[in-house]
Amino acid sequence: MSKKASIGVTGLAVMGRNLARNLARHGHTVALHNRSEQRTRDLVEQFGDEGEFVPTYSAQEFVDALERPRKLVIMVKAGGPTDAVIEEFAPLLEEGDVIVDAGNAHFADTRRREAALRERGLHFVGTGVSGGEEGALHGPSIMPGGSKESYESLGPLFESISAKVDGDPCCTHIGPDGAGHFVKMVHNGIEYSDMQLIAESFDLLRGALGYEPAQIAEVFRTWNTGRLDSYLIEITAEVLAHTDAATGRPFVDVVADQAEQKGTGRWTVQIGLDLGVPISGIAEAVFARSLSGSADLRKASRGLPGPSRAPLTGAAAETFADDVERALYASKIVAYAQGFNQIQAGGAEYGWDIDLGALAAIWRGGCIIRAKFLDDIRAAYAAEPALPTLLTAGDFRKAVEDAQDSWRSVISTAVRLGIPTPGFSTALAYYDGLRAERLPAALVQGQRDYFGAHTYRRVDREGSFHTRWAEDDRPEAGA
Amino acid sequence: MSKKASIGVTGLAVMGRNLARNLARHGHTVALHNRSEQRTRDLVEQFGDEGEFVPTYSAQEFVDALERPRKLVIMVKAGGPTDAVIEEFAPLLEEGDVIVDAGNAHFADTRRREAALRERGLHFVGTGVSGGEEGALHGPSIMPGGSKESYESLGPLFESISAKVDGDPCCTHIGPDGAGHFVKMVHNGIEYSDMQLIAESFDLLRGALGYEPAQIAEVFRTWNTGRLDSYLIEITAEVLAHTDAATGRPFVDVVADQAEQKGTGRWTVQIGLDLGVPISGIAEAVFARSLSGSADLRKASRGLPGPSRAPLTGAAAETFADDVERALYASKIVAYAQGFNQIQAGGAEYGWDIDLGALAAIWRGGCIIRAKFLDDIRAAYAAEPALPTLLTAGDFRKAVEDAQDSWRSVISTAVRLGIPTPGFSTALAYYDGLRAERLPAALVQGQRDYFGAHTYRRVDREGSFHTRWAEDDRPEAGA
Repeated sequence: MSKKASIGVTGLAVMGRNLARNLARHGHTVALHNRSEQRTRDLVEQFGDEGEFVPTYSAQEFVDALERPRKLVIMVKAGGPTDAVIEEFAPLLEEGDVIVDAGNAHFADTRRREAALRERGLHFVGTGVSGGEEGALHGPSIMPGGSKESYESLGPLFESISAKVDGDPCCTHIGPDGAGHFVKMVHNGIEYSDMQLIAESFDLLRGALGYEPAQIAEVFRTWNTGRLDSYLIEITAEVLAHTDAATGRPFVDVVADQAEQKGTGRWTVQIGLDLGVPISGIAEAVFARSLSGSADLRKASRGLPGPSRAPLTGAAAETFADDVERALYASKIVAYAQGFNQIQAGGAEYGWDIDLGALAAIWRGGCIIRAKFLDDIRAAYAAEPALPTLLTAGDFRKAVEDAQDSWRSVISTAVRLGIPTPGFSTALAYYDGLRAERLPAALVQGQRDYFGAHTYRRVDREGSFHTRWAEDDRPEAGA
Repeated sequence: MSKKASIGVTGLAVMGRNLARNLARHGHTVALHNRSEQRTRDLVEQFGDEGEFVPTYSAQEFVDALERPRKLVIMVKAGGPTDAVIEEFAPLLEEGDVIVDAGNAHFADTRRREAALRERGLHFVGTGVSGGEEGALHGPSIMPGGSKESYESLGPLFESISAKVDGDPCCTHIGPDGAGHFVKMVHNGIEYSDMQLIAESFDLLRGALGYEPAQIAEVFRTWNTGRLDSYLIEITAEVLAHTDAATGRPFVDVVADQAEQKGTGRWTVQIGLDLGVPISGIAEAVFARSLSGSADLRKASRGLPGPSRAPLTGAAAETFADDVERALYASKIVAYAQGFNQIQAGGAEYGWDIDLGALAAIWRGGCIIRAKFLDDIRAAYAAEPALPTLLTAGDFRKAVEDAQDSWRSVISTAVRLGIPTPGFSTALAYYDGLRAERLPAALVQGQRDYFGAHTYRRVDREGSFHTRWAEDDRPEAGA
């Protein structure tokens, strides 16, 4: 018998393989298992020199290879495949063992699985892992849910392989049951929003200034030296600077302009709607992708009238890139404010008690939205854990104040030139809605009372009121 | 034994009661049933002279009172209560009898119930009923799903009590199983969008021109004599013209500006996301209501910096109301285009074969969104049943073309003055997105390929491609 493994990974496609390699590289003995044996053999053959692996070729052999409490990481497709693998292993485990689902499960599934396995004496940890394939190998941001007890044995392992920022691991216990997958979902929603805002910034610089992608790459490189310093801005510059080898054209011009999606953005919006949290920035980003992919609709709509895209000139052109930077930063604050509010609301709904500052801290490295900016968010929540919105935190408030003229001017320009900026526009509308003394929602309440006797509340006294709008209006008692 | 009833209604709260009265007023003998007997007695006592009612006081008595095939309408709360009532009556029915759910069920529940009852030899018809309490009594718009066979016996009854436009009943068979509840859901989503656009128009006229509600009521009255002629514009004028008796202030100013919602708008957006249809106008309307109701968030955000709302002067002020009318009309076309596209997508997904022209025709009267406009939509789909988007239909394209300058100018003004217009803004962004030659979605695809090896398609050849962005990038075969 070989040495017992500290942890096991089943499901050795690229994400599982890289996670296993990362664990082995950090000195952990890793049991390996995969439905088809070849992947297990390939991993050992190609990367066996990176650390201690224990290849296994049956469920029983895999389980037997693990030291107790067993920690086994499932990295298979979300949904049915995950349930199938859980059912394969759970009967072989003993009380106190820990099953980790490191895939992109819906948090509601994770809650269901956790409850079912808890009944059977097992810990189930749904964990978010962000950073893609490279992150999984070199240090991801890790967001484990599940019981505190499970984190005691699992935490040190995951912290050792996570990204590090200022020496701190990008891994923390998020909260019970589905909390880890929930925050990973919102992370992805925020990522959609951030990417959309960056894409709109590119489109604006191109449409309003007539810049080529290579020039815009330079603008993004400059931005990346300032407060926008982030992985997404960095790779945007890389993508925009890239020349397509086959045609010699800018890479971005040979890519089909139909964005795809795998579903976590959509989930974020659907759950945001259930929670009653306005996350319009994420919604617009998801819809922008759907719209881009609606080929027939777009084809039919070509030639609909619009303004000419005459580039800006003179003073407006000179300041425009700086204006876009400020508008992007302000819109980005809104995007993150909405996302963090959704996490607050989810935490309240499910009783998770999530430390938003600690969450922002582990997103500073390893994950797709990693950025200097996240450290400012960490500081804002550290200073005021129940902060109602990031927009009012000192530095962000200041940034939004400084951005006022630029933000409004950039959107006006987009509207005038016919450049679609759903992300920028919804961010500003949200901002103006939040700070409004009065909203026309009062009229909506009046309409609802008129046509549906839905009643309304008043500004000057408590209670529900109904107006008898029509002669024959005979409301029910109590309405 | 009294005469057998043509139809029965169980659940005699205001909607059920009014539907029963409407049926009786049109010469149908109506069996009545309610969980608590008092409501049945009250109806007969108060309205017994309106027609022939057969009050019953047990499930068996109710079923026995109905002529065959029995047609019984359930009008109780959606969800559990509906299931409970179905389970109460289904065992007492015979093959070919028809259960109608006229409540606001989720179409997925309707699909489930229809399939289960079909197994038991019963027809189940989920039907949308729009028009509120008044509509139920005086003539609603009725959207029955379910089998064609069920419509043969049910259709004549429902058509007789529906609203009429140019002599045509506002009732038609929508399609199988959940089709009726699906289109009613989207109807409500469109209603949210329409109401939000109207509310923004009010806010704009007030914020940019400094008009009082009574003046704005006059503007809406004028609009209601033109192409915007609709129930919602009509009642908006009524609400805005209304003076609060208790304070002598404009009614709209004493109503709390926190809009409520009952859930069908949210469902519409959630299903739109599942279907991959960009329905950003409905989403923004739902979020605008959530935002208005986020009291703590709004309180914390008071005092966030923004521009002063100095009213317009001079020429800009003179044309502003007309500009808003054009912007509203163009945005409204977008709202309906999105909603009808969602119905198209739902029909394709569930195999419903919905006649969009016939649907628009039955929304011309009875329902909350009834409008002259719906006749234009009817005509557009009659001319081209598979029209990809309403925006390209002749008259709508022309209206949108004429609105260009106004639409863009109104949004610019809103952005400059800090008046939140999420509905107007998203409508224009959608429009500009649809007609764009190229969208920055290409950059999003580049980013996705960079960080997640998600691959991309090209404009110049078929297939999926991946770029080796980093030195150590070793993509899987086939990726």
